[in-house]
Amino acid sequence: MIGIGVSPGIGIGKAIIKKDTKIDLVKKHIAETEEEIQKLNTAREKAKNQIEELYEHAFNTIGKKEAGIFRAHRMILEDPDFFGQIEAKIREEKVNSEWAVWEVANIFINMFQAMEDDYMKERASDIKDVTGRLIRIILNVKEMKLSTLSQEVIIVAEDLTPSDTAQMDKNKVIGFITETGGKNSHSAIMARTLEIPAVVGVEKARTFISDGDYIILDGDTGEIVLNPNKDALEAYKQKKEAYIESTKKLQMVRGKKSITKDGFVVKIAANIGTPKDVEGVIDNDGEGVGLYRTEFLYMDRDKLPTEEEQFEAYKEVAIRLEGKPVVIRTLDIGGDKDLSYLKLPEEMNPFLGYRAIRLCLDRTDIFKTQLRALLRASVYGDIKIMFPMISAIEELRQAKGILEGVKEELRAENIKFNNNIEIGIMIEIPSAAVMSDLFAKEVDFFSIGTNDLIQYTTAVDRGNRKVSYLYNEFHPALLRLIKTIIDNGHKEGIKVKMCGEVAGNPKLIPILIGMGLDEFSMSASSMLRARWIVNNILKKDMEGLVEEILKLPTAQEVKEFIQKNIHI
Amino acid sequence: MIGIGVSPGIGIGKAIIKKDTKIDLVKKHIAETEEEIQKLNTAREKAKNQIEELYEHAFNTIGKKEAGIFRAHRMILEDPDFFGQIEAKIREEKVNSEWAVWEVANIFINMFQAMEDDYMKERASDIKDVTGRLIRIILNVKEMKLSTLSQEVIIVAEDLTPSDTAQMDKNKVIGFITETGGKNSHSAIMARTLEIPAVVGVEKARTFISDGDYIILDGDTGEIVLNPNKDALEAYKQKKEAYIESTKKLQMVRGKKSITKDGFVVKIAANIGTPKDVEGVIDNDGEGVGLYRTEFLYMDRDKLPTEEEQFEAYKEVAIRLEGKPVVIRTLDIGGDKDLSYLKLPEEMNPFLGYRAIRLCLDRTDIFKTQLRALLRASVYGDIKIMFPMISAIEELRQAKGILEGVKEELRAENIKFNNNIEIGIMIEIPSAAVMSDLFAKEVDFFSIGTNDLIQYTTAVDRGNRKVSYLYNEFHPALLRLIKTIIDNGHKEGIKVKMCGEVAGNPKLIPILIGMGLDEFSMSASSMLRARWIVNNILKKDMEGLVEEILKLPTAQEVKEFIQKNIHI
Repeated sequence: MIGIGVSPGIGIGKAIIKKDTKIDLVKKHIAETEEEIQKLNTAREKAKNQIEELYEHAFNTIGKKEAGIFRAHRMILEDPDFFGQIEAKIREEKVNSEWAVWEVANIFINMFQAMEDDYMKERASDIKDVTGRLIRIILNVKEMKLSTLSQEVIIVAEDLTPSDTAQMDKNKVIGFITETGGKNSHSAIMARTLEIPAVVGVEKARTFISDGDYIILDGDTGEIVLNPNKDALEAYKQKKEAYIESTKKLQMVRGKKSITKDGFVVKIAANIGTPKDVEGVIDNDGEGVGLYRTEFLYMDRDKLPTEEEQFEAYKEVAIRLEGKPVVIRTLDIGGDKDLSYLKLPEEMNPFLGYRAIRLCLDRTDIFKTQLRALLRASVYGDIKIMFPMISAIEELRQAKGILEGVKEELRAENIKFNNNIEIGIMIEIPSAAVMSDLFAKEVDFFSIGTNDLIQYTTAVDRGNRKVSYLYNEFHPALLRLIKTIIDNGHKEGIKVKMCGEVAGNPKLIPILIGMGLDEFSMSASSMLRARWIVNNILKKDMEGLVEEILKLPTAQEVKEFIQKNIHI
Repeated sequence: MIGIGVSPGIGIGKAIIKKDTKIDLVKKHIAETEEEIQKLNTAREKAKNQIEELYEHAFNTIGKKEAGIFRAHRMILEDPDFFGQIEAKIREEKVNSEWAVWEVANIFINMFQAMEDDYMKERASDIKDVTGRLIRIILNVKEMKLSTLSQEVIIVAEDLTPSDTAQMDKNKVIGFITETGGKNSHSAIMARTLEIPAVVGVEKARTFISDGDYIILDGDTGEIVLNPNKDALEAYKQKKEAYIESTKKLQMVRGKKSITKDGFVVKIAANIGTPKDVEGVIDNDGEGVGLYRTEFLYMDRDKLPTEEEQFEAYKEVAIRLEGKPVVIRTLDIGGDKDLSYLKLPEEMNPFLGYRAIRLCLDRTDIFKTQLRALLRASVYGDIKIMFPMISAIEELRQAKGILEGVKEELRAENIKFNNNIEIGIMIEIPSAAVMSDLFAKEVDFFSIGTNDLIQYTTAVDRGNRKVSYLYNEFHPALLRLIKTIIDNGHKEGIKVKMCGEVAGNPKLIPILIGMGLDEFSMSASSMLRARWIVNNILKKDMEGLVEEILKLPTAQEVKEFIQKNIHI
């Protein structure tokens, strides 16, 4: 069996299957609607209490940040609008409360799930989790408890909710396997946070694996071995030892420089979505923020954020980073997101459509407001501005022109800003990669966005299950383009950074070092490992390997070559 | 004013506005439905007669091929299914016949218009044209006649239907301007066939231009000058003379080689969609078919075409080309086409989805049938096989493996085929361009598909009005990729062809010669001009210009550079 390895490490032990308590929801006619609403409200209070307990348990055993998800749950339970809709349904349609909860919840779940953004998708699971709890309370259905495990186990579940992971006894759980989910689903993120090996997206895992089966899971490769023979067991035990050893080493690079054995210094930074994510950056000893996605400010609301709201968010990040740099990306939003107040067009191919800088150059009102906020915040720290989805030099020139206009305005108003603020672009469209020699003359830095660059370079929507097998971080065309971009940037003396997932891929970091990449931006939890890798390689060795790799025809051969030649 | 120049040449003269006879369709209740059906059938007969007349007129004045469109119209009028639906509507809903015609027609028009393929889109205009005629006959509404013009005029219309163009006195019409349409709309194609300068897509042209206005239109640049001053008039008169001069020259290259003044020989071939298009290839002295799109065989039907049907089509093309080469592209279809029998998935970004070779490698039943038909037909002429949408070398290897399997089958069945049939790939995805040095080792030829290559390289869906301004044939990234592909192909000694629209762009042909492109495939009507251009340039001069062009940062600068340096 194989799934998606989302949290590294080897888990070896007995399986425990998390059975879902099957709830058959039935729509019933209710005459006494006020009584039914009373029932709902009692359940709502009970749910609040449970969540408060979970919050405290998570706070004490996992950490403040992770416990935060229960604050989100409580907010849903306290949302008068959400419950207003449920009560209205009970009153007007005379239905039972669990049915009303379920119907209203589904409207929101579907809405959030349809969004491309991972953050927004998480909202859907929050609602699912908390309304599931509510319905179980109403129906008095008990859940399987994960808090009282008597031995070390590997949990096999359809998926794990925040409530599951929060109550889990983390000393007993030595691995997760889930049937659904991806790299950024809650259970994957939690597995990484708790440093538990995990494999997700294993279809029908609960059909193949039974309670008590002895299994090995490799959270790196996604492999699962069921009832292994002696040789396999021995091999994986060794791999596990090696992994544990290397994990210990990770703590040793805390506070160290990100420098190769032959003295090449890089920066290891983090990607963030909101000011509160800065905490994780600092916790993990990040050297800055390589990508601050500003979309969050625009989502989940009914009108555009004001200049003031944006200013506060950017300022907060700048201040909390205490002088460490933060690259703030201007709005990268498009037709696949449902922002009702923007009235975005319906598009046949939203990924090839009206989005990011294209939208900003058209809606200069939105763009100017953001640029004003960014410039105003720039006096509070080391803010750099980055434009996404640049495909032609004209677009960059136009964006820079607008920025100059905004600077002029601020000057006229006597508002301070960093006049030498650095301007960069995302290189995520093939045409920008191909023209990077000339782009390098007109910006202060590049940041390679590998996720989109792979998608456009190979004409693959990675969200499309029929073709996602073609999306490959080891595609030799991608590696060649990356090399070209880095070389072209360096010829003009500018820094080349990377903020796509490739930057955090332990297999590719040495190759990127060989190419001379200056800055790696990744999820905060990957940073220490990245630094450890950097500290343990020689750049000049990697340079030699890069030359070989760029001659290889297929992703598979690239992967095998790295496996064979880089032992880190 | 500016529109899309679709048929070259300068038109100078008085405007005549084609007013649309406004028909207010009203839904009426009809008690005597059988009488109403009688009315419909009388109109249908009358329409058939009119169309017969138009066919003959077109046949005599324009040509057999162009008259063919009226055969399509007659087929619609003779379609028992189409009229069955209309009659059923009249009987069951008790509505007036013109209403029933309009409603049924719209179902089909919308269906065809939603298709990406230009051929299919044309079906929509055929139905619109012929049902419009039927409704006018039923309502006894007269149309403005274009057959009796007393002086030379430039027609300004919303759009021109085949019926309009067929009855037009082509000695009097010296230009078209239409408000709708694109490069491949009927009026554009007809303008090129009749060699009348034309500009389409001029929004609200009939608001800005009045009957009798003196206008200049430039079918090359799309420019329209209203009531020009003396200087403008003089300048355009000179341009017109120059154009007429060059047009005369075109006929002189018929039967000549496609060779530059310094002896570089290329092939000028055509893109076709059906076997009947071969006629146009021969009429225009084409040296072969550089792209035979096989999608037509799969569309507008309710099941897959059989091996036999395909074999007949490929064989017919091979035979009619009398030994001239034909490059047949395997099925290039995807989720944006409505082929009910294929049950294609709905996709968020069909252009980045499950289509072309991706579909064929998944549905090997479909692929093998086509390959069998292609191989069997290969003994009747010079057929070459081309795979579309190749993004990774693995896909090519897999496709070639399947082809070898099919060859083996045929051998076992003692069926003859050309064992040395050439295999090529479309280079239309950036990753293939970037990896073209290695692809060149595994195929017999490349064919650059510029339309998709531009779309993916710049992340622009050119059908999306909000971003189509970014789709540009002069984008320097495209030109650099083309140069790379050609160089890489030549290093391995294989031919590099091109079958996208860039290949027929008179401004870019000299540049492509400078890059060393071996074969140009374009719409049949553009071939003589392309040869004339090739015959009148020196490759070595163009090589020097290419070097300069590849240093330019923007499409605008590329265009201006060509304008300034190439006078042909």
